[in-house]
Order: sequence, then C-alpha cells, then structure tokens
Amino acid sequence: MKRTSRDIRVANRFEVLRQIIGAAIVSRQEVASQSGLSLATVSNLVGELLELGLLVEVGFQDSGGGRPRGLVSVNPAGGVLVGVDVAETYVHVEAFDTGLAVLATAEEHLHQTENRPEQVVGHIVSGIRSVIAAAGVAADRVLGVGISVPGQVDREGGVSIFAPNWDWHDVPLRSLLASVDLPLYLDNPLRASVVAELWFGAGRGRDDVAVLTLGTGVGAGLAFGGVLYRGATNSAGEWGHTTLVLDGRPCHCGARGCVETYVGAPGIMQHLRERDRASPMLRPDDQTATIDALAEGIAAGDPVALDVLAETARYLGVAVADLVNLVNPEVIVLSSWVAARLGPALLPVVRDEVARHALRRPLAATEITLGRVAGNPVSLGAATFALEGVLAGIGMPTRPGRHARPAAPAR
Amino acid sequence: MKRTSRDIRVANRFEVLRQIIGAAIVSRQEVASQSGLSLATVSNLVGELLELGLLVEVGFQDSGGGRPRGLVSVNPAGGVLVGVDVAETYVHVEAFDTGLAVLATAEEHLHQTENRPEQVVGHIVSGIRSVIAAAGVAADRVLGVGISVPGQVDREGGVSIFAPNWDWHDVPLRSLLASVDLPLYLDNPLRASVVAELWFGAGRGRDDVAVLTLGTGVGAGLAFGGVLYRGATNSAGEWGHTTLVLDGRPCHCGARGCVETYVGAPGIMQHLRERDRASPMLRPDDQTATIDALAEGIAAGDPVALDVLAETARYLGVAVADLVNLVNPEVIVLSSWVAARLGPALLPVVRDEVARHALRRPLAATEITLGRVAGNPVSLGAATFALEGVLAGIGMPTRPGRHARPAAPAR
Repeated sequence: MKRTSRDIRVANRFEVLRQIIGAAIVSRQEVASQSGLSLATVSNLVGELLELGLLVEVGFQDSGGGRPRGLVSVNPAGGVLVGVDVAETYVHVEAFDTGLAVLATAEEHLHQTENRPEQVVGHIVSGIRSVIAAAGVAADRVLGVGISVPGQVDREGGVSIFAPNWDWHDVPLRSLLASVDLPLYLDNPLRASVVAELWFGAGRGRDDVAVLTLGTGVGAGLAFGGVLYRGATNSAGEWGHTTLVLDGRPCHCGARGCVETYVGAPGIMQHLRERDRASPMLRPDDQTATIDALAEGIAAGDPVALDVLAETARYLGVAVADLVNLVNPEVIVLSSWVAARLGPALLPVVRDEVARHALRRPLAATEITLGRVAGNPVSLGAATFALEGVLAGIGMPTRPGRHARPAAPAR
Repeated sequence: MKRTSRDIRVANRFEVLRQIIGAAIVSRQEVASQSGLSLATVSNLVGELLELGLLVEVGFQDSGGGRPRGLVSVNPAGGVLVGVDVAETYVHVEAFDTGLAVLATAEEHLHQTENRPEQVVGHIVSGIRSVIAAAGVAADRVLGVGISVPGQVDREGGVSIFAPNWDWHDVPLRSLLASVDLPLYLDNPLRASVVAELWFGAGRGRDDVAVLTLGTGVGAGLAFGGVLYRGATNSAGEWGHTTLVLDGRPCHCGARGCVETYVGAPGIMQHLRERDRASPMLRPDDQTATIDALAEGIAAGDPVALDVLAETARYLGVAVADLVNLVNPEVIVLSSWVAARLGPALLPVVRDEVARHALRRPLAATEITLGRVAGNPVSLGAATFALEGVLAGIGMPTRPGRHARPAAPAR
C-alpha cells in the first residue's frame, strides 16, 4: 500500500510513454492533459526518455498565438522488444520496435503430448532466435523479452508455479531459459491480454476492464482504474477456476464445476461429445482442429454445431454475468484463440444469456465485445511487460540483465 | 480514468485525514512517510485542515537533534458526523465526532412487513434526530449524514435504484428525507463495511480486501490498492448475485442459484426448513430470532443446528473460494449481523471448505477472518462517506448542503 516516490516515478514514466505510444506524435501539453500529471512532471520525464533514446523530437505544433509546442514520438530505432505467447497448443513469438509495431513473427505448433518444460522451452528459445534474426537486429539491441505462460507465475523468481493443463508445478523457467541471455519478464496470458486491450484495443480510455482468455485454459485479466490488477500474489483473475456448477465436472485444478471445464476448449469438446459421440467434427487429440471444425459447422448451419454453440453460450453467459455483477466493469472482452474462431457466432448468444442473469444497472454499463487488438494480444502484452521492466530499470544500479539500457539515439 | 488535479487534491486531503485519524496523534513527517506523499504536500493539506478546524496542533515531538516536529490530531470539536445503517431488520444510527469516535447511538427494529419507503424513512429521520439530541450538539454543528441502504444506489441522485429484498425500484430517498435538512451521502452496506474495515479493522494497512456482508442480503465490499472499488456504476461487489448452483434456488433478483439464496439469512432458514420443517428454532416471520436460536443450538451441540451450520459453510466455502481465485485478496472479512451471531462457529468450517476449493497460491496469501471493527461497521463507514463529502466540498463554490463547512476551530 505504501508507494515510494520511486514507485510513483516509475509508474509516471510508464504512463507518459504509454500516452506517447498511443498517440504516435504528441506534445508534452497533450500528454499532461491526458494523464493528469503536471506539465513540469511530463517535461521532466520526456527529457529523461529523450536522453535514453526511447523518444525523439519530431517537430513543432502551432499553439494558436503562444510559443510553438515541441512534438515528440517514440524512437523506432530505440531498441527491440520481444513478446512470447506460450499456449497449450502453440508458441507465438513477435519482435517489436519500442513503439510496439511488429517487426517479425514466428509461430511453432505444440503437439498435445509436447508439454514437458524442456520441450516447451526449446520452442521458446528457437522462436526468440528466429524473430531476432528475421528482424535483422543485433542481439545487443534487444532490450528485453516478455514471456507469457499459462497458469500462475512468480514474476520475481521467473517460476511457473502451477499450470493446471500441463500439471506443471514450480518450473524454474528463467533458469531453463538461461541460454537466451536477455532480460526476461515472465507473466501469464490473462495479464498480457488485458494490458494489450488497455493500450491498443477495446480497453483504451476505459477504467474497469475484464479480458476473458478463452483457450484451452480460461481466465479473466482485470484492470481497475485503467491499471492492471494483480492481486496479492499476482494470481488474480482465475475466473476459470470459480465454480459454475456445484459438484460439476472435475477440473485439473482439483476442484469441481469450474467455469473452465464448461467453456475452455476441452469443455466445449465435451459438450460436442455429449451431443454426438461419433461427430466427425470431434478430433480427440486436436483441440484446434475440433474448434475449427465446429466453427465451420456453425457457419454451415449444422444442427449439432449449433447445439454445442448454444450449450457453450449458456454456461459462458452465466459466468460472464457473474463478472458483471461482481466487478461491474465498463467492458468485457472475449479474447484468445477460441474466441477468435467461435467469437462472432458466440457473441450475440452470450449477450442474450448474460442479460437473463445479470443485474440491470451494471449490465447496462457493460459493453461485451470481441478483442480489438490487431494481431496477437498476448505477445503484444508480454512485450509491454518487457518495456515496463526496462523503464523500471532506468537509473537503477543493478538491472535484471546485461542489455537493459536502451541503445543510444540513432541520429 | 482521467483524474484532474482537483480530484487528486481531494483524494490526498482525504488520505492525510485518514492517516491522522488512524494514528490519533502524529507528525507531518510520519503522515508523509505513511502516505507516500511529499512533506510539502502533507504540510500544505494539514495547514488547510487546521484552518478549517478539523485538526488541532497538540504539541511537539523531539526529532533526535533536529528541530522539534509539530504534532497534530483530529479536533474533536471540529463537528459531528452521523452514520446510518439501514438493514432489512433494523435501522441503526450513530453520531460521531470528526475523529470518528461514537458520541451517541440509536437503534430501531424494523418488522418484516415494515418495508415501504415512507416507513423506513420514518425510522431514519427519528434515528437521526435522536442521536443529534443525545449527542447534545446544535444541528448546525452536524457536518453531514452518511446513509447506507441495502441494494444498488445512485449516490449522486440520492436514489435507491434496486433493493431486491424489499422490491424497491428507483426510490428517491434524498427527496423523501428532505426534512432532515442536512447534507446527505447515500451508499450501501458493502461499501460502508469495507471502508470501516480499511480504516479501523481487519483491512488496516492492507491493499486488496473483500468484506462480506452476511445479513438478509449478501455481498462483498471490495478495496484494491487500499482504496474502495466502486466499479463503473457503483454496483461492484454483488457477489450475493453470482451463481453458485446453476439453475438452483430462485432469487429475488430474478436469476437462480445466487450465492445469497444459500448463505443469506432466508437461505439459512431454508436449510433449516429442509433439515427439519418442524424445528422449534424456526421462527418463520423473524430472521433475527431464527438465527439467534440457531446460534444457541450450535453452542448447545444440537445436531440439527450443527447440520445447518455445515450446510451453510459448504455453500459459503465454495463462494468464498471463488473470491480467493478471482480477486486474490489479502484478507476476506465476514461481517454484518449473521456473521456476528454465527461467525465464531462458522469461521473454522468455512476455512476448511475454502481450502478444498481454492487454488493453493492465492489461498496461502488470504487471511479469512471475522470483522474487527468495534461497534457497527456500516454506520461507521457511512459516516466516513459524509466526512469524505465534507472534504470534497472544501473550496467549492456550491456545496451539497447548507452546513457542509466545518465549524470554526474551538480555541
């Protein structure tokens, strides 16, 4: 609860850079007005970021009679950030410039059985090497790597505490990734997605946001007051492990009736199995192919596919209504790969189900929508964690890694 | 999301006063260190509060070689605040000094059938008059009245939007209370309880807190980062209306299977009815008497009472585990009148049930405890809303009421 002046300075630095990235080209005055910070504070922080080469001066704006206002922008040559989205079914890696524009992308498929730490780490390492090579930058230009892995994560220790769908417990990812030799920032897809939507998507300008990750696992990234909410141990948002059906389906987490067991990809496959055990849409060992086949079936008006859609929406609607009632957010975003495939068909049915269960006042204030981040929100969000780490390291005697200092401005 | 410098000033003023109230007697330096505000800001705000008579100088503290530090304290003669806790079964009213020490108390019982707005308003008005008279202060010394009513509340409009257990819709309480002729600040027990625990109880010094109101209605007051969380429309925390049993018991809110229908007082009575329809503990028209009889039965080892306790704990445990997993709070507090009566017996059983359902990492970080506010937390929290309103009104050209300016310092 007690924030030091250093914490506040780091948070303000991050906020100023976020405003500038969001606006592309902007004056200090506009940043002050948007952020609520004083012009003096903004000017001071902008000066610091210019000095470090993260920003560049890009000209002047007429201020209607007064002195022309200097405009600043992110320095695209300020360095490279890497964001890694590790899911149960793939590893997706992107390189970004410091304005968070994509420079290069790599994706590797994970087979259902490929879930031992060393296997997954192998894909992460090759993905990172591949995007750095494709972006054509020297390794010493890479400021940091943000990595999102499913489940609960100890950020400071760089450890995957618990990944239910892989049965990982206390996997020391940072050590296993030592060969990468770059500053690593570990977190999970709930937090990465909500930050990506806050900066670039359906959460822009919003205070209270829930981003639902609908993939193999299920969860809710939460932001309150426009800021990511982590909870006491960075475990907040385990909406997938709240109870939807008392004594219902068994869950990997050890409990029963969790939301995830009804609306995660394996849960949706279970609806399909219960509806038609012999359905040709069902590919027992391939979640992605099954969800793809369901999406095609829905588009073609297949009655089994439509029943599975309705059943999924019924459960999802109740669980989303719970968030409306408890969290009273301005926007709830359906995100991740299941939402990308089924979302357009799912969204209107889910909205109807939510309306049947939520309280009227919070319901009226909640937009329910699909994600609006172009590209992969998780790798983007993971890259913002690396950027945040770089900003937090400014002026610190020791840094999380060798390369944390941005490159000198390329003038 | 965009906070103006005025918003920040009001929030800082409130934080400084909160620190001083919490500490009783304190130096500006200690307030600065506890709040993270600069000494210059604290000195400036303390000067303003001294000027208004809300604080007094109370001496000096040796600073170990430097200049002695001035000590300040709340001015007990700074004015009077009234806090009103309107529940389904009673109206409880307290008068406080500006240090939030109780000056006088009044409580009126509400009969089960006594739930029309004019009936409830009658009890509120007589309660307020009674405590002002008992405190022996002139009406112009009363700075404001905070009123907590069950259900969803429009604070700005002073309207009860929806109180499910009374079937109130859009009741214009501020207008109905016009005869009180004092600045009124309306909110609900979820928010009042969490603020009371944050200031004076189990939430002190904590960041992320959930206070569970267990009464006729059920809900969760939430605080994140040490600050009350309201959500987009001041409706956050309707945990009582999240689904615990899909297609379960019908709820007054229109949905089915809500947490409230299993752990609110009428829900507990239903467990008793299902266990033993003819139980002498069951007083069909009197929730308070039934819960009292249950508490006595539990203490006496009555097997029916113990079964009802176990059944209530089973449902409550799952619903509390949902909060642990979703919100990852540092502390969950069981509050309100049902918790006051059944809490000591309920707490250990609930803890066991939570441990069976919650994820290990957030569970290990969560203290589950009974409320620690001496007296009634809801009337206390309601009074803090009045105090906050007074502080927000400082320096404003128009005020919510005639008497919002604190009395001149009594020197």
